[in-house]
Amino acid sequence: MAVTLKDVAERAGVSRSAVSRTYTEGASVSKHTRRKVEKAANELGYSPNALASSLTTGRTKLIGLVSNNFHNPIFLQVFDLFTKGLQDRGLRPLLVNLTDEVNPENSVRMLRAYSVDAVIVASSTLPESFAEGFRDAGVPVVHSFGRHVASPKVNVLGINNIEAGRMAAQSLIARGYDDVAFLGGPKSATSTQDRYKGFVDEVAQHPQVKLSSSFAADYTFDAGRAEMTRLLKAKPAQAYFCGDDVLSIGALSAVQSAGLNVPDDIGLLGLNDMEMARWENINLTTIHNPFRQIIASSIELIESMLKDDTRYPEARLFACHIVERGTLRPLP
Amino acid sequence: MAVTLKDVAERAGVSRSAVSRTYTEGASVSKHTRRKVEKAANELGYSPNALASSLTTGRTKLIGLVSNNFHNPIFLQVFDLFTKGLQDRGLRPLLVNLTDEVNPENSVRMLRAYSVDAVIVASSTLPESFAEGFRDAGVPVVHSFGRHVASPKVNVLGINNIEAGRMAAQSLIARGYDDVAFLGGPKSATSTQDRYKGFVDEVAQHPQVKLSSSFAADYTFDAGRAEMTRLLKAKPAQAYFCGDDVLSIGALSAVQSAGLNVPDDIGLLGLNDMEMARWENINLTTIHNPFRQIIASSIELIESMLKDDTRYPEARLFACHIVERGTLRPLP
Repeated sequence: MAVTLKDVAERAGVSRSAVSRTYTEGASVSKHTRRKVEKAANELGYSPNALASSLTTGRTKLIGLVSNNFHNPIFLQVFDLFTKGLQDRGLRPLLVNLTDEVNPENSVRMLRAYSVDAVIVASSTLPESFAEGFRDAGVPVVHSFGRHVASPKVNVLGINNIEAGRMAAQSLIARGYDDVAFLGGPKSATSTQDRYKGFVDEVAQHPQVKLSSSFAADYTFDAGRAEMTRLLKAKPAQAYFCGDDVLSIGALSAVQSAGLNVPDDIGLLGLNDMEMARWENINLTTIHNPFRQIIASSIELIESMLKDDTRYPEARLFACHIVERGTLRPLP
Repeated sequence: MAVTLKDVAERAGVSRSAVSRTYTEGASVSKHTRRKVEKAANELGYSPNALASSLTTGRTKLIGLVSNNFHNPIFLQVFDLFTKGLQDRGLRPLLVNLTDEVNPENSVRMLRAYSVDAVIVASSTLPESFAEGFRDAGVPVVHSFGRHVASPKVNVLGINNIEAGRMAAQSLIARGYDDVAFLGGPKSATSTQDRYKGFVDEVAQHPQVKLSSSFAADYTFDAGRAEMTRLLKAKPAQAYFCGDDVLSIGALSAVQSAGLNVPDDIGLLGLNDMEMARWENINLTTIHNPFRQIIASSIELIESMLKDDTRYPEARLFACHIVERGTLRPLP
């Protein structure tokens, strides 16, 4: 059994509060009491725990790791990299699942109550204001996979989704597709909005290319499959930029179920390059999101902030590229 | 800057101790003082420090959630269900990633230092002794997806893997396969050992059926693909029981890459029934592991233990069944 503060208080013949004060910086406790407490603690092998000592050091080494899409397989890779990276630095992730959460603000209060040293918001769908809530509460925060902005109010790391949308359109058009479509994630997600804007802006430069667009309810397999199933009932486009990989795989499934061939009948382009995209059964052509670099850089930034909390917010931007696989016609 | 207890005390015109007592269950504080403190706390946006109050209540509401396979997609579903279930009860998961960890014992010490109220070991590959380390340290523990034993030393919840292996063999033989194989996960995993035992014992009841077996390095897509690629170089069996879904999907990928047809040339049977198993591109026949029930029951058990720490260990066993999809010949 672990030795507790109560055990030490009984052994020393003092109150629990006296033991607590002995281990609290600046708290008032007489020399005599302190000596009794320290003697009892030594005899029992008591050491104030990490959380108790955090009251003195002001550091819990707990890092809130907040995310809201536990149905998108890329997040297993994201959690793996974040937890390993934090553990390697002696930091501990307190995981907060905001999937389907309607009041994400509650998590700000909860993580403050746990005195986390910092918060990582790992989400491409939560608005900028969410991370700002932590900043406003005085908690160091980074928003990984957040929207790239010119004048960041919090630290934000990720790709430029407008450029990614533009890259998608350029690539489809370069392959000779002249009837292209955007099949986005939820409209409320900043990543969807930006990918859509870049895609549409670029297609508009090519008046001979027909454009259509639609949006899935979520970044999930089921949502992608449902939306593509609906699209196939009318006259589908020649090629779809699908917003992300899991939507693409759902769409791929719908196309195959309809007895159509990818890429001969319909082309599909994803975004993220998650592990499954390279599975032979899927073999998805996709835009690589450098999430390993983004996560490593997020953790480095958190460490810097813990050392120096006067830093100005930064926007760190990472370049994307297309990974050629089997779901689009080859480039000419 | 975060609002502190001191700020609230000054605003309310009371002592720091009075603020502390206001937020301590069972501590004595007058109604008048409580009202002044709560008013000041509201005005300042103060929320009591959960960790500070844990020193008095003896409860942090932190639950260690320990796992060691962040490369197996089913664990995203596992983390989703555990984090949601714990949050719904006001408990907070401290996530520990032991993937590739050589000294899992360090995590026992770390979680003790954080005074977690309890630990959930979510793994089918960690040995029983791992969860026992927490019990020995006086920390309530459940081992979810652990090995079923007749006389449990810690709370263990999961399927009977020997029975699952037996079920797999019976089903393959009933479909008319007479050259069957076990393609297991890592030999060191208790789940692999038990599934293998059940499978081999059952096949031995059918002397006309040819049996072979091999083991992948990990429960991962890449390991399943590598092992099946190796098997295809010699004369492969007619049907494989693959140990788990992600291994099956890796094996499926290797079979398809070799230009062979599933199930006409080679049949595949998985285990878990993770979300991807029903994706049309995969459509894996598999043994359903009732992990939703196992997780819900694990959380209920944790709650019971937090109320009553004198409970004897339990082994809770959950039934499996086969989900018919497209990777095995139909039953006659």
